[in-house]
Amino acid sequence: MPNSEFTLIDRYFAAHPVRRPDVALGIGDDCALLMPPGGQQLAVTMDTLIADVHFFAAADPEGIGHKALAVNLSDLAAMGATPAWATLALILPQVDEKWLDAFCRGLFALADRHGVQLIGGDTTHGPATVITLQAHGFAPPGQALRRDGARPGDRIYVTGTPGDAGLALAAAFGKATVANPYADYVLLRLERPEPRMTQGLTLRGIANAVIDVSDGLVQDLGHILERSRVGARLEVDQLPLSPALLASLDRQTAITTALAGGDDYELCFTVPPERIQQLEQRAVNWDCRCTPIGVITAESGLRLLQADGLAFRLNQPGYDHFRVTSDFQP
Amino acid sequence: MPNSEFTLIDRYFAAHPVRRPDVALGIGDDCALLMPPGGQQLAVTMDTLIADVHFFAAADPEGIGHKALAVNLSDLAAMGATPAWATLALILPQVDEKWLDAFCRGLFALADRHGVQLIGGDTTHGPATVITLQAHGFAPPGQALRRDGARPGDRIYVTGTPGDAGLALAAAFGKATVANPYADYVLLRLERPEPRMTQGLTLRGIANAVIDVSDGLVQDLGHILERSRVGARLEVDQLPLSPALLASLDRQTAITTALAGGDDYELCFTVPPERIQQLEQRAVNWDCRCTPIGVITAESGLRLLQADGLAFRLNQPGYDHFRVTSDFQP
Repeated sequence: MPNSEFTLIDRYFAAHPVRRPDVALGIGDDCALLMPPGGQQLAVTMDTLIADVHFFAAADPEGIGHKALAVNLSDLAAMGATPAWATLALILPQVDEKWLDAFCRGLFALADRHGVQLIGGDTTHGPATVITLQAHGFAPPGQALRRDGARPGDRIYVTGTPGDAGLALAAAFGKATVANPYADYVLLRLERPEPRMTQGLTLRGIANAVIDVSDGLVQDLGHILERSRVGARLEVDQLPLSPALLASLDRQTAITTALAGGDDYELCFTVPPERIQQLEQRAVNWDCRCTPIGVITAESGLRLLQADGLAFRLNQPGYDHFRVTSDFQP
Repeated sequence: MPNSEFTLIDRYFAAHPVRRPDVALGIGDDCALLMPPGGQQLAVTMDTLIADVHFFAAADPEGIGHKALAVNLSDLAAMGATPAWATLALILPQVDEKWLDAFCRGLFALADRHGVQLIGGDTTHGPATVITLQAHGFAPPGQALRRDGARPGDRIYVTGTPGDAGLALAAAFGKATVANPYADYVLLRLERPEPRMTQGLTLRGIANAVIDVSDGLVQDLGHILERSRVGARLEVDQLPLSPALLASLDRQTAITTALAGGDDYELCFTVPPERIQQLEQRAVNWDCRCTPIGVITAESGLRLLQADGLAFRLNQPGYDHFRVTSDFQP
């Protein structure tokens, strides 16, 4: 494949107009040049999506473009950061202009909606489609939402209805059937996750610890517990299960999927008792549910309890989760 | 491969101590948190290396770790930026601790030498070894070295001896034989390129336009000409050919390799006549050559001239150049 075809591709990205005044030099030089706002911390995150590892190679490319950015914006949301810039390293096995067109449409629609500017990157010919995207955002010093601030007595919350993406994956692998009329809904939840930006920003000053649920609620909450050196008790009957999940799976499997299914990109966070009222007042305006599901404990470990007081047995992971990936988590 | 092995890998990266005071939060959360210096522009660059596209899969992993960072630092150098932070997305087909050990050794040795902190990233299981690295640095506003500032009458310079990496590649593909005793030298030039950081910094306020020569001198100088809307005349007999190149190739092929061979990571830059003396005074202290090789012209196009005044015929590219990649260059 001649280099000139890749130069053509680059025009897809370079053609998108620069809208942010803090971009002094965008795509087209050795580096982009940016003017970070004074006195703010810069939040940086990077995620890779590989064809047939993180998304189906045959999936709608508009959704792939959306998701590549969404999973990174979700990390900024989990930090309480305002998004700003993104860079993209795109590896493609061949040039397919129709695919690229749709990919860019999905990517830029989400970028424009959140005021994110693509400021650089790299396109390369390679053995499989691989998308590495890095996103940058800002937070006032001391206000970013970390994983290590959970304290015993904090209430644990989750946004939205975790498990929907896990159901979509299970269905794709023939391990579950999505009940009518929810097929489109669960596919959108898998392919077009909506990063919880508003929620992340309003959690500043309220939440003690926040993480985004990309690897499953239990696993990601586990990172908060580990980094904060605390434990937790989850009331599994309080989990916000979507009508799609309840209609498609028996209750045990639905709960398991909500706890262990990946790819949800919801936020899980902890709030001290004195700020619960403030949280619940703000959450009224959210475009998604905000549900208390448990409490942080001084005793370490994660206990899953049913309403009848018995332990819930989780055969983890609920469904094969076809990603093997991790952010660097010591 | 279980996720836990990837968690193990992450420890390779997370274990390296944070040394920079501007890193508020390093590896281990949804995002890294950084404190950019006030009043500076942030320079950002991202490059991907794919096994058997950009490096030989069987090459020394210490060199691969070095090169993954070096090619990005070279972009910062070409911008006149001081390096600061890096993120790494690493895709591996399997976990090989010996390989990882050496990869990290090469990466961190170069990072530590230039005060660069690895602040985050992502490790993933995938079909081939793919390394995407992003580097961040700073430059005072208005002092970054761009591609679009070349003016007619500027002298064109190049650092070091371009063509050495091209010779190493040609030899690896059986298209050339490296003369004794230069085999180790040219391999180092290919596998351990030394980013020209000092040179980039001292070119601030001196050079009108700078680029790093990663795709070959002619092609990369072409980007300066295009972005600056100028032309150039190169005196091919003034090209700084290394003893290795001269001993291994006939003169025509040596010049072709210096002009069109890739992977050199030298800087090509233009300097107006009134600042040539200042440049040459500073370049005395460089650890590499600094050679005038031509002049920027108002007339567009690139002319290659021999000392006898005749045109040099370049059968471009001199050697198959196994990369098909590009930074977004509109």
